Amino acid sequence: MADYEIFELGDVVLQSGQTIRGAQMAYKTYGKLNEAKDNVIVYPCWYSGTHLENEWLISESMALDPRKYFIIVPNMFGNGLSSSPSNTPAPYNASRFPKVTAYDNVVQQHRLVTEKFGISKIKLVTGWSMGALQTFHWGAIFPDMVERILPFQGSAKCSRHNFVFLEGVKAALQADAAFADGFYKEQPAKGLRAASRVYAGWGFSQTFYRVEADLKKMGYASLEDFLVGFWEGWLLSKDANNLLTMLSTWQNGDISNNPLYGGDYKKALSSIKAKAIVMPASTDLYFPPEDSAFEVENMPNAELRVVKTYWGHFAGGPGTSPDDIKTIDAALKELLAS
Amino acid sequence: MADYEIFELGDVVLQSGQTIRGAQMAYKTYGKLNEAKDNVIVYPCWYSGTHLENEWLISESMALDPRKYFIIVPNMFGNGLSSSPSNTPAPYNASRFPKVTAYDNVVQQHRLVTEKFGISKIKLVTGWSMGALQTFHWGAIFPDMVERILPFQGSAKCSRHNFVFLEGVKAALQADAAFADGFYKEQPAKGLRAASRVYAGWGFSQTFYRVEADLKKMGYASLEDFLVGFWEGWLLSKDANNLLTMLSTWQNGDISNNPLYGGDYKKALSSIKAKAIVMPASTDLYFPPEDSAFEVENMPNAELRVVKTYWGHFAGGPGTSPDDIKTIDAALKELLAS
Repeated sequence: MADYEIFELGDVVLQSGQTIRGAQMAYKTYGKLNEAKDNVIVYPCWYSGTHLENEWLISESMALDPRKYFIIVPNMFGNGLSSSPSNTPAPYNASRFPKVTAYDNVVQQHRLVTEKFGISKIKLVTGWSMGALQTFHWGAIFPDMVERILPFQGSAKCSRHNFVFLEGVKAALQADAAFADGFYKEQPAKGLRAASRVYAGWGFSQTFYRVEADLKKMGYASLEDFLVGFWEGWLLSKDANNLLTMLSTWQNGDISNNPLYGGDYKKALSSIKAKAIVMPASTDLYFPPEDSAFEVENMPNAELRVVKTYWGHFAGGPGTSPDDIKTIDAALKELLAS
Repeated sequence: MADYEIFELGDVVLQSGQTIRGAQMAYKTYGKLNEAKDNVIVYPCWYSGTHLENEWLISESMALDPRKYFIIVPNMFGNGLSSSPSNTPAPYNASRFPKVTAYDNVVQQHRLVTEKFGISKIKLVTGWSMGALQTFHWGAIFPDMVERILPFQGSAKCSRHNFVFLEGVKAALQADAAFADGFYKEQPAKGLRAASRVYAGWGFSQTFYRVEADLKKMGYASLEDFLVGFWEGWLLSKDANNLLTMLSTWQNGDISNNPLYGGDYKKALSSIKAKAIVMPASTDLYFPPEDSAFEVENMPNAELRVVKTYWGHFAGGPGTSPDDIKTIDAALKELLAS
C-alpha cells in the first residue's frame, strides 16, 4: 500500500522538447492546509531520495512541525515514484526516458500546489542538495509566490567542478557492460558498486575520514564496511536508469536556463524576492561555500550562513550528523518566525 | 632506443612475501657524480609517470641543475619501465604481478644508489605526489644518509580519504568487463576512460574549474574537450594492470609500515633527520595541508610551506602551473643552499 498520492499531469512537454506522456507526480503531504492557505511549506527531494528520505526533518519537535504547517513533499521525476525510467512503458522506458531539468520539475510541482490545492502563497521552500537546487528554482521562477527559502548544501546552478564529479559517477556506472545502454535485465551491480565508491570520496570530507567518523560516529566496523554498508547499500537499492535521469537533472541544473532569464544567472539570482538563508557546509566538496557566497551576493534578501562541520556534504543528510541538523533546524525556525 | 639504464636487482622479496624474479629497475641520471660523491639528488616518479615525466623540473635554469648535481630518477615498479605487470613474463604477469609497497621501491632504489654508484650521502630527495611518498620513505628509512627532503603535494602515509578516492578510480576501471580480471587482450578502454573521469574531479580544485583554467590557462576548447584530451588521453596511454599496481602501492603507502617502525607513524616521522620543506598545495583535494601539518609537527627539522594556489594537486604537476613551479623551484634552491 503506497503511503503517497499521485497527481496526474497529463502529457508534459519538457525543456528538452521531449514529452512525458501521462506524466505522474507522486507526493505526500504532512499536516493540514489551513483555511487561509498560508501555512504551506514545499520540501523537494534530494538525489535518489523519495519523500520517505525527507521525513527525518519533519517532526513536532522541529521547525517543520506538521501541527502548524502543511508540508508538501513532491517526488522528483526519475526517483522511481514520480514518472521515471523504471515505471514508464515502452518506448519511453529505460534510457529512452526523456531528459528532465530542475525547471521542468518545479514547473510541474507548481501545478500540484496551485491546481490541486489552490495555494497562492508559499511560506517556505527548503531542501537538501538537489532539494536545494529545486528550492532555488522555486524562488527564481515564482518570486511573487515564495516568501522564504532555505536551501542547504546545494546550489542554484551546477558548477563545472560538480559536473565533473558527476561525470565520474556516471562513467563508473556505465562502464559495466551489464548496463547494456540502459536496457538491462538485471541491475548493473558492478557499475552501481563502482559508482558508490566514486561517490564515497565526495560525500564526506577529508576530515570526516581523518577523524574516523564512519567508525566512531556512524558505527561501521572498518572503512571497507562503510564503503559496502553505507555506500554500495545506497546505490544498489536504486535503479540505474533512474539514477542517470536524476544525474542529468542535476548536471543541467541552472535557475537561469529558462525563458524567464535566458541564461542570465545574475539576473535570475537577483530576481529571487524570498527572504533567504543559504546554508552551505564548510567542508562540502561539491557545493563549496564560495559558490553559495556568489549566490547570496546577487540575491537581494539573502544571508549566507555556513554550517561549520567536518561532515562535508552530509551535514544536512538524513539523520547523519545530529549537531548540524540542530543548526539547520534552528535556522529554519528563525526564518519561519521572521 | 631506450634513453634509460637498467639496474639488475635479481630476485627481490617484497613486504607482501611475494617475489619479483629477475627484478629490474629502470633509471636515468642527469649531470655527473663528482669525486666527493656529494652532489647527489634522488628524484622519484609520480603515479603513472616515468623519468620522462620528471624532466620538466630538471634544467640549467632551475634548482635541479645538471651542471651542479648528479640527479638520479628511479622508475617505480609498475610504471612500465621498471619491473611491471606489462613487462614481466607469466606466471607473474598481468594481475599476478606481486603487490609492491613504497618501502619496497625505496629499499631497491637504495641498492641502486649504493651498489651501483657507491654513494653514501644524498644531498636531496624530492618528488611530487607519489614521488613525495617515496621522498618521505627515503627520509624515514635512511635517516643518516638523506640530508634534505622536499616532498611536494604528497604524504608520508596514504590517508583514509585518499584511499577512498583511489577506490573510486580502481572500481571504475575494473567495472569494465573487458578488464577480464587483468587478463585482457586489449586495454579496457571503457574502464580507463571512466577512471579518467573519476580522477578529473580530484586532480584540480573546485576553484580551478570555477575560473575555467582548463580553458583559459590550458587552452582546451570546452570542459568535455579537457575531460577527453587531458584526462582520457592520460590514462589511455597507460597499461591498466600497471596502473593498478601503482595504485596499490599508493594506497598502502606508509613510512611506518616496516620493521624499523612497526606501524608507529609518529616515531617514523620523528626519525626523519633530514632538513625538510614540506609543500602541500592549499587546494589539493587528496593531500590537504592538514595532513602535511601533522607530518611537520612530528618531524624534528621540517618546515610547512603551503603553496597558495587554485591548481589543486596539479600545482606541482609537470609544467601545468608556471607560478606554482616557480614557488617550488625557489624552495628547492633555498633548501639546497642551506
